[in-house]
Amino acid sequence: MSVSRVLIYGGRGALGEACVSHFKANNWWVASVDLHPNEAADTSITVNSEASWVDQEKNVLEAIATALAGEKLNAVVCVAGGWAGGNAAKELSKAADLMWRQSVWSSTISASVAANHLAPGGFLALTGAKAALEGTPSMIGYGMAKAAVHQLTKSLGSEFSGLPENSMAVAIMPITLDTPMNRKWMANADFTTWTPLSFVAEMFLKWGKGQDRPKSGSILTLITKNSETQLTVE
Amino acid sequence: MSVSRVLIYGGRGALGEACVSHFKANNWWVASVDLHPNEAADTSITVNSEASWVDQEKNVLEAIATALAGEKLNAVVCVAGGWAGGNAAKELSKAADLMWRQSVWSSTISASVAANHLAPGGFLALTGAKAALEGTPSMIGYGMAKAAVHQLTKSLGSEFSGLPENSMAVAIMPITLDTPMNRKWMANADFTTWTPLSFVAEMFLKWGKGQDRPKSGSILTLITKNSETQLTVE
Repeated sequence: MSVSRVLIYGGRGALGEACVSHFKANNWWVASVDLHPNEAADTSITVNSEASWVDQEKNVLEAIATALAGEKLNAVVCVAGGWAGGNAAKELSKAADLMWRQSVWSSTISASVAANHLAPGGFLALTGAKAALEGTPSMIGYGMAKAAVHQLTKSLGSEFSGLPENSMAVAIMPITLDTPMNRKWMANADFTTWTPLSFVAEMFLKWGKGQDRPKSGSILTLITKNSETQLTVE
Repeated sequence: MSVSRVLIYGGRGALGEACVSHFKANNWWVASVDLHPNEAADTSITVNSEASWVDQEKNVLEAIATALAGEKLNAVVCVAGGWAGGNAAKELSKAADLMWRQSVWSSTISASVAANHLAPGGFLALTGAKAALEGTPSMIGYGMAKAAVHQLTKSLGSEFSGLPENSMAVAIMPITLDTPMNRKWMANADFTTWTPLSFVAEMFLKWGKGQDRPKSGSILTLITKNSETQLTVE
């Protein structure tokens, strides 16, 4: 049986590291894309955060083409992102610019990677946010960026998006992930409502095997209750 | 009766010029923001397209503060924008970057101007696109940018967005505007389904007078049939 291959965009974040480990433990070839290398991956592509959007795309596309050496990816997972608050009264563009770079640049570059290197029947997963389905006046830049990711997902799930045939493009919307940082900053929260990283990593692995796949173009909420996580299509 | 004041972002585009003229003809003080001055306006703020998002915001905020000399705006209208096609297969980030600059930078800077200089009870109008309510696989960057503008509008129409009290923030979604360029490129189209620029300019003027205002946060479709235009709330 041939090796399966995944690219994890944001492979040094908490969720990204969990994905890299889980795919590696299941004998996938794993490429990590982030500002810093992930030593657990088979190959790490480091992004220069000072480079332009277009140059970042060019650099990532060239690096993954070299690393794949003619092979195809079976999955592209973008779990890069960030958060910034703020309304329109002060430095809106600064917050919006940061959110755009962290969530949208990474998502479109992942889409470009998928369009150019995904095998037919592969999948692309992006990361959205439930809050952005409505207005987000206290975090305007964040909401705009995530709304753009949602709409990008709908585009990629439509015919003639440029993705290979039978591929799936979806966005996941976690509520709160059970990460060390979240435990540190919200020490008194109810952790049984937080989504374990292992659940998300296993879900991606299943999709990679062609199991339990949602419809392409879906925006998926991950709701965790009593430590059980369920997927709901918006 | 005191003078009313409006800022038109994109005051050198076809719709922008129509708005500048119409407000001027109705004795408003008019500021135009664009890459080039609009001589018909009371003041023109020129944007350096090479400057960063944050710097463009800073420069426009400083210039309008100077021009207003302590007065307030009654309306901020953003009709800047552009269009680019393309799916995920080729140079997605290039198209997305251009669309972001043309539609989203202009919209967030207009929101910043409104948050800082709009009088209570004033209004902000942005420009969205009906197509972006769904996936737009053949124009992915455009769809993302307009989806972000729609979500921005919902944020600005919510409490604590930073806009002054009793103000209104909406986005208009024209289908096809009756401009000289559109007549040139689509010479055989049915012009009776195109929205006249004068209709849009008069609608803004009415909102400026406090007449026929839609609910804040609304995304509004402009549908023209038999040369009659109707406003529908999405």
